[in-house]
Amino acid sequence: MQISNSPVTIALSLNKKTLTHEYILASKIFSISVIEKDAPLRFIGKFGFQSGRNIDKFKETKYEVLNSKCPAVVDSSLAYLGLELLDKLDAGDYTLFLGKLVESKLLKDGEVMTYNYYHDEKCGMTSSFAPTFMRDIAMSKTCSAKNTKYRCTVCNYIYNPDLGDIDGGIGPGTAFENIPDTWRCPICGVDKTKFVKMEQ
Amino acid sequence: MQISNSPVTIALSLNKKTLTHEYILASKIFSISVIEKDAPLRFIGKFGFQSGRNIDKFKETKYEVLNSKCPAVVDSSLAYLGLELLDKLDAGDYTLFLGKLVESKLLKDGEVMTYNYYHDEKCGMTSSFAPTFMRDIAMSKTCSAKNTKYRCTVCNYIYNPDLGDIDGGIGPGTAFENIPDTWRCPICGVDKTKFVKMEQ
Repeated sequence: MQISNSPVTIALSLNKKTLTHEYILASKIFSISVIEKDAPLRFIGKFGFQSGRNIDKFKETKYEVLNSKCPAVVDSSLAYLGLELLDKLDAGDYTLFLGKLVESKLLKDGEVMTYNYYHDEKCGMTSSFAPTFMRDIAMSKTCSAKNTKYRCTVCNYIYNPDLGDIDGGIGPGTAFENIPDTWRCPICGVDKTKFVKMEQ
Repeated sequence: MQISNSPVTIALSLNKKTLTHEYILASKIFSISVIEKDAPLRFIGKFGFQSGRNIDKFKETKYEVLNSKCPAVVDSSLAYLGLELLDKLDAGDYTLFLGKLVESKLLKDGEVMTYNYYHDEKCGMTSSFAPTFMRDIAMSKTCSAKNTKYRCTVCNYIYNPDLGDIDGGIGPGTAFENIPDTWRCPICGVDKTKFVKMEQ
């Protein structure tokens, strides 16, 4: 969230358990990429649901190195911001970081992926590390229509046969039972055995 | 912006010159209303571009009084939040307030007015008191189409004849010259003489 215009200052809330939180405290620098509307769920899964403690997120991701030496993701992004840590505020399980904009780049024109679009159109769920996470939150109306859905017990992603998993090569209308066993959860990467059938 | 989920904590950036800033510092309480997509520009004008030092914003506005005694606007709103001040952070011309959610109400279902929609579809401009204000910012593509537009020299609202000013009773296709002299700027309320013709 932008909180001031001179200098341009951005606030970012991060769970204290994340590796990024450690990195910002240690380096006093960070970057933010603005995700495009059509970003694949796998991309969101990698950056939003997996930890840099377990995988190298930059291994198969395009990025640029800023003047501060901080990497900025350019895959599936419209723009990035390079920031210097100005201040921070404790908020329980989270820290609110204030960053001063020192560098930025517009990568391409396009529409931003809003949280609303991610929930309603992509049927994505909220990470338990996100400030907006709530247990037992109702699924969006768009995503709770007909047909039997399956929920990932690891990350709560819902497989909706009406939508399939386009990014994962599964066409709309494919029942969960008909998905190949090699398929992986687009968010957290676990296999089909970690999914449970949802009550209608 | 929500920055934590237990307790639910919201961050709000406010210009230090605003009356609301004074009120929050003195009372340690505040409310936030979630504005609906179809909120009239006059409503946005009253709350976003005018000061409570000059007008009584609640005079012709529906509101409810929260347990904390703080008023919460319900006109043109989908929901409101009642908050207690937890902490604050200095950010130059702005203060970032952190509020703990103590009360909330869903008023009706509907779509939220995003800043994007406000700029592109309503042709609204950003208040000079907003954290995202920039001088000489380009108008959105949607709003910089054909026909001669007029800019309000007080608040920078653009009158676009393609759109008219529905809320103010001016139909789409009405040239600025044909608007009655009794018309007022939907944002800041000044008369037609404060408008200047824009270069094509």
